[in-house]
Amino acid sequence: MLINKLALIGVGLIGGSLARGLKAAGVCRTISGYDRNKDELGKALALGVIDDCPEDLSAVVADADLLVLATPPGAMENLFRAVADKLDTRTVVTDVGSVKGSIVASARIALGEKAGSFVPGHPVAGTEMNGVEASFATLFRDHLVILTPLDENPAAAIQLVSRMWEACGAKVLCMPVDYHDQVLAATSHLPHMLAYALVDCLAAMDESEEVFRFAAGGFRDFTRIASSNPEMWSDVCVANRDMLLQVLERFRLHLEKITRAISGSDSAGLLEIFSRARQARDEYLSIKKDAPL
Amino acid sequence: MLINKLALIGVGLIGGSLARGLKAAGVCRTISGYDRNKDELGKALALGVIDDCPEDLSAVVADADLLVLATPPGAMENLFRAVADKLDTRTVVTDVGSVKGSIVASARIALGEKAGSFVPGHPVAGTEMNGVEASFATLFRDHLVILTPLDENPAAAIQLVSRMWEACGAKVLCMPVDYHDQVLAATSHLPHMLAYALVDCLAAMDESEEVFRFAAGGFRDFTRIASSNPEMWSDVCVANRDMLLQVLERFRLHLEKITRAISGSDSAGLLEIFSRARQARDEYLSIKKDAPL
Repeated sequence: MLINKLALIGVGLIGGSLARGLKAAGVCRTISGYDRNKDELGKALALGVIDDCPEDLSAVVADADLLVLATPPGAMENLFRAVADKLDTRTVVTDVGSVKGSIVASARIALGEKAGSFVPGHPVAGTEMNGVEASFATLFRDHLVILTPLDENPAAAIQLVSRMWEACGAKVLCMPVDYHDQVLAATSHLPHMLAYALVDCLAAMDESEEVFRFAAGGFRDFTRIASSNPEMWSDVCVANRDMLLQVLERFRLHLEKITRAISGSDSAGLLEIFSRARQARDEYLSIKKDAPL
Repeated sequence: MLINKLALIGVGLIGGSLARGLKAAGVCRTISGYDRNKDELGKALALGVIDDCPEDLSAVVADADLLVLATPPGAMENLFRAVADKLDTRTVVTDVGSVKGSIVASARIALGEKAGSFVPGHPVAGTEMNGVEASFATLFRDHLVILTPLDENPAAAIQLVSRMWEACGAKVLCMPVDYHDQVLAATSHLPHMLAYALVDCLAAMDESEEVFRFAAGGFRDFTRIASSNPEMWSDVCVANRDMLLQVLERFRLHLEKITRAISGSDSAGLLEIFSRARQARDEYLSIKKDAPL
């Protein structure tokens, strides 16, 4: 058995889907769950996503091979502090945060000498749904999980975390912490900001009800990510502040260029920008086709 | 038979899907096609989407019950001029442009006294594909088609255009020209600008290849509309310039507000904006569920 006991803090969409995936793969004997939301915890137990949920955090993490923190990034600092003196030296810790730099920094401070047990991770998967009832075993299948290992991580710890995700059908890839945060700011955090800003902008219009009523199918796809968990995204913004501000500024300049071209009725300039963007997206899709992650 | 002869100028995704839809519904006896792209025209004929394609525009429109202009908005002014003196007085004319104000203005100038034959239309449907080979009979099924009738349109002309779209499974709705252009600027034209700007912004980054490689599923949905026809969108921007500039400015202010909150690590402010946006989108989805268009 790959994992005799998994301790899972946060039993929402991501944590729940991980638990279901591991059980479906038959690689985990027992899962102890913990969540500040007792409703969710009760549902997770009733659904069989977790096997027990001791009230005492010490009991949750005791004897665990693996502890997974599947909470919004903002909750992790306190959790690292709460578990620090309860961790077996053999317990490997990982997380699912969409930002890595700030989480690694709080782990180093809170875990001190035990920081080597923490292998930072980020499953690049999700839906706009929240909660354990929306979780499903195949959420990570054919998706990418990025690990940003620390220098002090033993190879065996990195391997255990990799195998856990691979058991759920994910493809695991390692990269440096800063690089992760920069790339994700561009491909994930920035699009979420645009979707939230767009929906908020339209909702504030006088005609908002008609505006939404006449929205075409493309609008639904485009704004899907604006239904994501607001708390998690507020945390992500603060945790990846500097990288996100950089890409927001880049985006602002690009949108300004388009706005100027529209203002000047510059058809040729617009055609050039739109054609270049379409070509870039088509190339992106062909990369994805060759190496679906 | 609803339509004895349809003259179709522009046999791409929209025109081709309309032709297929009408044939599938058995409401149109014959379709004459015309396209500046002779390759597309040949394919449309070979696929049976159109029945003939006379080289002479007079022969295309002669004796037509209905003439549909299914070209990018920028081509319409010249087409109105080209067909003006070839139109039977009984031929009803409609278009499929995503912008109505500027098209109505050119129709009035080019058609003069015949302007009453022109019933402006906009099927709110499409995919990111182009060309007749991507067309299909059910593209408009359960989609909205907006008509913006002119005061001088006879009721029978409006009814014929409505029935044409209803035969393809669409729901037809009438509204004033300006209102159409304002609502569409917000729900369709603005999101296209954001998608184009985002993809162009990421493609210009040093790490662009990795950036696209690690993009998650949400990114694909979010940028789908950046694969739309660049020429059509360049035309739309110029044709709906003033309304689009207004919503771009509104959006800029909303994104600036989010940027300021991130810059100040204002978690509570971000949470408020994101929660409000999620709620607005959820309400939009529930409207759509009650009245799926």
